Amino acid sequence: MSRFWSDHVVNLAPYTPGEQPKIADLLKLNTNEHPMGPSPLVLEAIRAAATDSLRRYPDNESTALREAIAALHGLDARQVFPGNGSDEVLAHIFNGLFRRGDRPLLMPDVTYSFYRTYCRLYDIPCRTIPLAEDFSIRVSDYTAGHPAQPAGIIFSNPNAPTGIALGLADIEAIASANPDVPVVVDEAYVDFGADSAVALLERCGNIVIVQTFSKSRSLAGLRVGFAMASQEIVDGLVRVKDSFNSYPLDTVAQAGAIAALRDQAYFDQAREAIIETREYLTQQLATLGFEVLPSRANFVFARHPEHEGGALSRALRARGVLVRHFSLPRIEDFLRITVGTRSECERLCNTLSEIFLKTH
Amino acid sequence: MSRFWSDHVVNLAPYTPGEQPKIADLLKLNTNEHPMGPSPLVLEAIRAAATDSLRRYPDNESTALREAIAALHGLDARQVFPGNGSDEVLAHIFNGLFRRGDRPLLMPDVTYSFYRTYCRLYDIPCRTIPLAEDFSIRVSDYTAGHPAQPAGIIFSNPNAPTGIALGLADIEAIASANPDVPVVVDEAYVDFGADSAVALLERCGNIVIVQTFSKSRSLAGLRVGFAMASQEIVDGLVRVKDSFNSYPLDTVAQAGAIAALRDQAYFDQAREAIIETREYLTQQLATLGFEVLPSRANFVFARHPEHEGGALSRALRARGVLVRHFSLPRIEDFLRITVGTRSECERLCNTLSEIFLKTH
Repeated sequence: MSRFWSDHVVNLAPYTPGEQPKIADLLKLNTNEHPMGPSPLVLEAIRAAATDSLRRYPDNESTALREAIAALHGLDARQVFPGNGSDEVLAHIFNGLFRRGDRPLLMPDVTYSFYRTYCRLYDIPCRTIPLAEDFSIRVSDYTAGHPAQPAGIIFSNPNAPTGIALGLADIEAIASANPDVPVVVDEAYVDFGADSAVALLERCGNIVIVQTFSKSRSLAGLRVGFAMASQEIVDGLVRVKDSFNSYPLDTVAQAGAIAALRDQAYFDQAREAIIETREYLTQQLATLGFEVLPSRANFVFARHPEHEGGALSRALRARGVLVRHFSLPRIEDFLRITVGTRSECERLCNTLSEIFLKTH
Repeated sequence: MSRFWSDHVVNLAPYTPGEQPKIADLLKLNTNEHPMGPSPLVLEAIRAAATDSLRRYPDNESTALREAIAALHGLDARQVFPGNGSDEVLAHIFNGLFRRGDRPLLMPDVTYSFYRTYCRLYDIPCRTIPLAEDFSIRVSDYTAGHPAQPAGIIFSNPNAPTGIALGLADIEAIASANPDVPVVVDEAYVDFGADSAVALLERCGNIVIVQTFSKSRSLAGLRVGFAMASQEIVDGLVRVKDSFNSYPLDTVAQAGAIAALRDQAYFDQAREAIIETREYLTQQLATLGFEVLPSRANFVFARHPEHEGGALSRALRARGVLVRHFSLPRIEDFLRITVGTRSECERLCNTLSEIFLKTH
């Protein structure tokens, strides 16, 4: 606390990212990074961008990148809003679309925890709706009418940290039942097996889709994310962004992201590797007695009937294996485990076996 | 306008960055970019960062970069707050330090125009204080007591777009007369001949200094800026940043910026080249009949008694020379001209001579 802080700063609830410790021989399965590196074309493009022209400002509109994203998804470039990772894109969405006085933003009780942080930052009332017993989103909770007109709706699909995906018919039902408010679908993990709501954009003008290069494109280190929506919604986000920072994407990041989109073959291979290993990991964890939620993401969310989540997470860490544990209601006994390579998954399962042997 | 926008979006006043057209043989003296490229060590570091480890998130605390900046300025790393260009750093400062209900932020009437944009974004009342007739900041206006307790004070030093610098004694007087509010000194251009207020940090706990790699380090394309302040002030800014985006600096940008700090010889050479060429350009413009304000930046601010600023700017543009013109009270007859290479300055002056010959 400092007398120089703005009045609201003390009440913020900053997000805590997964730790990035520099420990030798650590198995890092806590931040959902891809076990493969980015496409070789990306590395080449980054090296090629290391020239004297870095003295120049980047393209503040990221035109070439927006066009490449639009071409991939069959959209107009004016429907694409890129930013410094999908977290920055989400921040501008909360500011630009969800600030409606007292109207609450609706979201699942278990979802990406940064959403509540943004609500605190922008003073947006938040109404959480419990997931069903099986941790799926109950569509009727969002379509049946609300006690007060909401400011909007947001959820991740697949949801984080559960990994459970909602089908397009369900998403369309939610968007159609709430035609006057933005419905934001955070698709950070969509490429690992869920369907993108981009197919609904033409029919549902209130849908906003958020994607990222951090997960399926193996580029967490480059900080590129984007939203896709109607042009009028994107225009509003651009107004907010240009009131905050004209140039959030540096020249190198723009070049790298464009190159990533060019290598479809690598992308397909990298995502299929994850899907295959995820099925293997799910089976192995089940064999060890875990309940594993059905994941469409590059992580699994699992709990063991005989082991408390926090203790298990600490026991793994003591053996050099990092997974993510959230001390939050309903999910405190779960571990969120990133799908790494096959041999990383084997090491994880062997370490779990060791821990269980010791405890029994 | 869209019914999906937050209520305040229509009232924003987004910043308009200088244009970056792609026209052949254009002489671009409108965005204060350095005519030399970055240090070769920077390009090398960027190429070296193009590896598979881009699949990993960057260091969210930019520890190595903060340590390098702190070492350069004799500070503790916890006094350094880096961000995605100094514009993002300023945005977090406005949010984190200047939101004090009805209390107004004080700033000169002529200064970096993004400050007013931030005030609109964060709903901060803004009270502008006219510069003196000679466009200098009149220190007594900031030390004589204010009708209402301000939320804070901000100005650029050297000021933009005037280029005029304030001495450290004056800055200390302003900070000391306002001990209970943050005094932010935006030093984007300080390396071209002004004194940094970093020397005052120990005595004046309310001073916040903002610097950038975009100008004197020739890295506008990499998006790295930073603030320096007391640890308690930085702690508040970190709370805001971690409520917005945990990872604003990508891995490549962190590596490039660290490398830039390592090449002191290149930095000295690059900044001396600008200072020398600035003196040459100032003389040449004076010979052409311009009034040139005394600049300590990498640009000059000049007006001609017989030529209206907007018309002159358009005439230059028609001949392939871009300078910056602001249609704002008091400065509408000025041109802000970036100091390029010596031959670029010659081309500018020759083009001006041509225009004058044609008009007379």
